[in-house]
Amino acid sequence: MKQPTIREIPGGITAAKGIRAAGVYCGIKKTKPALSPDERLDLALIVSDRPATVAGVTTSNRSKAAPVLLCEQQLKGGRFSAIVANSGNANACTGRQGEQDAVQMRDRLARLLDRPPSEVFVASTGVIGQRLPIAKVLSGVREGVGLLSTEGGEAAARAIMTTDTCSKEAAVSFELDGQPVVIGGIAKGSGMIAPHLATMLCFVGTDAQISASLLRRVLRRTVDRSFNAITVDGCMSTNDTVLLFANGRSDTPPLKAGTPECDVFEEALLRVLSRLARMIVKDGEGATKLIRVEVMGTRTARDATVAAKAIANSSLVKTAFFGEDCNWGRIMSAIGASGIRFDPGLVEISVDQIPVVRKGLGLGTAAERRAAARMRRPELDLTVDLRGGMGRAVILTTDLSEAYVRINAGYRS
Amino acid sequence: MKQPTIREIPGGITAAKGIRAAGVYCGIKKTKPALSPDERLDLALIVSDRPATVAGVTTSNRSKAAPVLLCEQQLKGGRFSAIVANSGNANACTGRQGEQDAVQMRDRLARLLDRPPSEVFVASTGVIGQRLPIAKVLSGVREGVGLLSTEGGEAAARAIMTTDTCSKEAAVSFELDGQPVVIGGIAKGSGMIAPHLATMLCFVGTDAQISASLLRRVLRRTVDRSFNAITVDGCMSTNDTVLLFANGRSDTPPLKAGTPECDVFEEALLRVLSRLARMIVKDGEGATKLIRVEVMGTRTARDATVAAKAIANSSLVKTAFFGEDCNWGRIMSAIGASGIRFDPGLVEISVDQIPVVRKGLGLGTAAERRAAARMRRPELDLTVDLRGGMGRAVILTTDLSEAYVRINAGYRS
Repeated sequence: MKQPTIREIPGGITAAKGIRAAGVYCGIKKTKPALSPDERLDLALIVSDRPATVAGVTTSNRSKAAPVLLCEQQLKGGRFSAIVANSGNANACTGRQGEQDAVQMRDRLARLLDRPPSEVFVASTGVIGQRLPIAKVLSGVREGVGLLSTEGGEAAARAIMTTDTCSKEAAVSFELDGQPVVIGGIAKGSGMIAPHLATMLCFVGTDAQISASLLRRVLRRTVDRSFNAITVDGCMSTNDTVLLFANGRSDTPPLKAGTPECDVFEEALLRVLSRLARMIVKDGEGATKLIRVEVMGTRTARDATVAAKAIANSSLVKTAFFGEDCNWGRIMSAIGASGIRFDPGLVEISVDQIPVVRKGLGLGTAAERRAAARMRRPELDLTVDLRGGMGRAVILTTDLSEAYVRINAGYRS
Repeated sequence: MKQPTIREIPGGITAAKGIRAAGVYCGIKKTKPALSPDERLDLALIVSDRPATVAGVTTSNRSKAAPVLLCEQQLKGGRFSAIVANSGNANACTGRQGEQDAVQMRDRLARLLDRPPSEVFVASTGVIGQRLPIAKVLSGVREGVGLLSTEGGEAAARAIMTTDTCSKEAAVSFELDGQPVVIGGIAKGSGMIAPHLATMLCFVGTDAQISASLLRRVLRRTVDRSFNAITVDGCMSTNDTVLLFANGRSDTPPLKAGTPECDVFEEALLRVLSRLARMIVKDGEGATKLIRVEVMGTRTARDATVAAKAIANSSLVKTAFFGEDCNWGRIMSAIGASGIRFDPGLVEISVDQIPVVRKGLGLGTAAERRAAARMRRPELDLTVDLRGGMGRAVILTTDLSEAYVRINAGYRS
């Protein structure tokens, strides 16, 4: 098989065949008169014209929101018809009442679409610990069903935003057996946890034909390399959810595990998820820089991930990047405190390709000044080689600015 | 035996009998003309008039500074005569040269005091990755020896400060067999890691008579309940060192493990260490509040510590405290993400004795407003009961303010 080209194309969740979406304002978000109706959308609907297979990954936070618990239950069935997702209220820490509200959202959409409730998914993002205004949400669902269209993906992307400063869409196209296949998705998130407004959400649809069990395996692997490899503030939300559905509308043959075709599909999916994950970091609360932290030379891949996350989550490393100060001692200290085994006397550190540490020793103030100049860039690489093995990991992170504190301290005031 | 009273007394490291100290300016710290000579002391000496037993606890960071490596080696001997400690330079990530410099400091002081080098300890705190100006340090040692006195404790406390805004001393007195016994100490630290100027240091001297092996066991237990129960930014330094020496000058009988006398000694030591630890949190970088996080009702004590540290280190919880916002959803989320097992439907949360969550549900905006009013206090309690067992832990922490970012981003500029 000739290796097919994966092309990035415009659009998001409605890019693939047989998917309609809508975004409406139903009254959950506070109405700010200064905002246009488009800016305060708070309810998204996504519908597959024919039943699809589905796979999902949800937060491992033990304080799971009601829609997450419902979602986990529905995922066992592996069948998908639609998603209803609201922003402005996380429906988390809301007890039995919250569970009933999520079920009502599901049942209302199922009835309006004439699909089984077991194929309808619910997601929420926003304030923790407050009850949903369920009557408003249910009328919003009815209004949204009337607006469903293949052009509605952008409105749906906007309707799931909370502290996000921009909507997040990505799509790719490639050919299988001479037929075009599309994968498209939307995401929200401005921090692994956004302030009070908890949550990262991501919905992806494709017209490929693939079983739910294979979809699960492919999704798990690609999420590990995309959403599980980003951090803004090291906090995991109560609502994180990634849903991927496949409706087979491309008319390509069913994908089989271990075939070149399935590898192409996985590569294309990773492209979409990585682009969406990168958009979330880039839009991180108060972030002025996107930093790609690469750790190599560890004994195992897991050690590399542990070290890269220790660096990416260190408040001292992140404030140094904000201050554009090549303070490599903080990086050495973060790795040392991470718990992994390594020889500090072998460490090499480069900032955006400028070496600043070799054999565990600084290369002098001239090198640090050159590196500091690179730190002014909005996107840069931090490379750490522990020279003790073949382990390697990459984590995307942001700097830590005064604006992060301001956003998170001042949210309710 | 009648339970003796433990009294807090003025003074610090020279409060116990037979201990002299000094603080000098030797030229490591940048001279700021605006500062008086007292404000820029950068070299401390502490000497026990007769050889003492010693125990120590050092950082578990794998990137250990040269003086820490030397210290760990010397601690095996269990004998103590003196400490030389400098601020302004951590002598960390300095390779073999750094190790030679630490040995030179030790040998110079040993020769001047005519004591075995194996009984002289070295500590450093300050910038990582730069060589010590060793000639200046060695002249400083000579000058300091000439200034040693039983009044020198305060100068020594000031000479180990880096970003600290105040010096940290504590001492207690109690009676054993009708004889007064004193434990006194000094500490520095303004963050588990201070900016660039890494390190928490603590030196404690007592005139009790106690073997090195018993001293080790008592120190390990009391450090777990004091310095290991505080956090400012969740970062562990390359230089953290606690040294405790006992010179027996009180003429009380040797302490024996498991006796009421030894329990009193341990209680008194805990008092000194806890006071010093609390001073460090209180002086945390940019901190506006000291928060006592108590978690109870976990399956094990370890689970309680894990949950309390997850809360105490969460950037979102800390910014909420800075903003005086009773944002309990962030606390629920931090516990949920900590990895411990618990039932979210049983959680109770109080802020300074005001209940805000019961059975996992919020108690409403009136309760939150009352709690938020309490959050204006400079010192407050956060109590979390998971109602699932007998585990319990307390961690002291600070809020996270814009000043923390400013201090750490702007340090070198």
